[in-house]
Amino acid sequence: MCSSEELEYPQKLLDYQCGFLVSKTMFTACELGVFDLLHEVQEPIAATTIASRLSTSVDGMERLLDACVGLKLLKVELKNNEGHYSNTDVSTLYLVKSSPKTLYHMITYYSQTTYKLWHFLPEAIREGKSQYERGFGISSKEVFEAIYRSEEEMLKFLYHMDTIWTICGKDIIQAFDLSVFCSVYDLGGCTGGLAKHFVSTYNETTVTIMDLPSVVQTAKKKFVTDEEQRIHFLEGA
Amino acid sequence: MCSSEELEYPQKLLDYQCGFLVSKTMFTACELGVFDLLHEVQEPIAATTIASRLSTSVDGMERLLDACVGLKLLKVELKNNEGHYSNTDVSTLYLVKSSPKTLYHMITYYSQTTYKLWHFLPEAIREGKSQYERGFGISSKEVFEAIYRSEEEMLKFLYHMDTIWTICGKDIIQAFDLSVFCSVYDLGGCTGGLAKHFVSTYNETTVTIMDLPSVVQTAKKKFVTDEEQRIHFLEGA
Repeated sequence: MCSSEELEYPQKLLDYQCGFLVSKTMFTACELGVFDLLHEVQEPIAATTIASRLSTSVDGMERLLDACVGLKLLKVELKNNEGHYSNTDVSTLYLVKSSPKTLYHMITYYSQTTYKLWHFLPEAIREGKSQYERGFGISSKEVFEAIYRSEEEMLKFLYHMDTIWTICGKDIIQAFDLSVFCSVYDLGGCTGGLAKHFVSTYNETTVTIMDLPSVVQTAKKKFVTDEEQRIHFLEGA
Repeated sequence: MCSSEELEYPQKLLDYQCGFLVSKTMFTACELGVFDLLHEVQEPIAATTIASRLSTSVDGMERLLDACVGLKLLKVELKNNEGHYSNTDVSTLYLVKSSPKTLYHMITYYSQTTYKLWHFLPEAIREGKSQYERGFGISSKEVFEAIYRSEEEMLKFLYHMDTIWTICGKDIIQAFDLSVFCSVYDLGGCTGGLAKHFVSTYNETTVTIMDLPSVVQTAKKKFVTDEEQRIHFLEGA
């Protein structure tokens, strides 16, 4: 199962060990708005300019930018002996907040909520329960009460969920011929991310999203516009 | 710079995003003693047995074990329709605490200290300073005052540092012919991890480790035995 090379030097384990450093580097560049700024200016700019525009330390920003270059999230070129940074095409498409395919909301959710909760994975395995109490001081037994603990948090979670369907919704809907189903119920359908792919792929299908009342109300307000025909909601618990 | 495949589906970004889940899965299996128990029993055992022996929930342990199988840190085989788990050779060598090549101390340091500090990477970049205050409530300006905040914490850090040399010390020492240097000073030489590789590779060399008084005292007590000739210490600050 293990090659002698792996036994000699545990590269895979060291990669696993550093996984969180990679995650947080990408998350932080997103959260600080690095990709947004580089998209806005539309030309390579120096670390000092980026630090100044985003109100960060120069030293910290230089290190972050170079780590992003190492991860191929940014490109760098020398001008007057100073590194000037710009987005890669993938970053422009997936990490700029205003892009229709942005992962921004998913990334910030992972960074601010999931990462923190996973610090308590040993406790979660011991106790067999979620760690919202240790992570966020919320002792609710219902995990969705914890996730939806405020309107702001609900919105963050809904954007996070919506992003997942932006990435893989079309592939999932088109993997099978679902045209025989004229009336589809999406239990826990949230923001209608999947429903939108459904109605745009199958012209005859109507989707009814069933979710908690507060989710339905927010989804109607923020995610499903009036123009989106054939998507209906049903509140429940 | 980016392939069209990458533009179509951002696999690399999704891998980066999940990096911390991978880290914490491996860290947690180490911290809970999964690899140690499997090494001790020397035969594949069921999740229920592992959960019972390690005082964890069965559901949580089953998920953790299957994640470890996915990461190729464990093997699984079916006996009477129930999964029975065992260590891979790499896990036996590098993840069992008692192994001479164990990464255990580095992993627990990463899990309990570094992971937590890196939650505050955006703040670190903004402020250009370490985040021991947010992470551990320590407002010291000197980072080593924070790292060595108690004897227990110092010991954890020293074991962590020592592990690094266990993995790559020999390669570094042998990368150049250093035999012309008979007297070597290792500034911040910590536990003598590098020094040991030096004296075992070069028979004529004497190494003097210079470090903080408290580090030197602990290193002498726990890491450098009397038998290790040609390693000396010098306290300083």
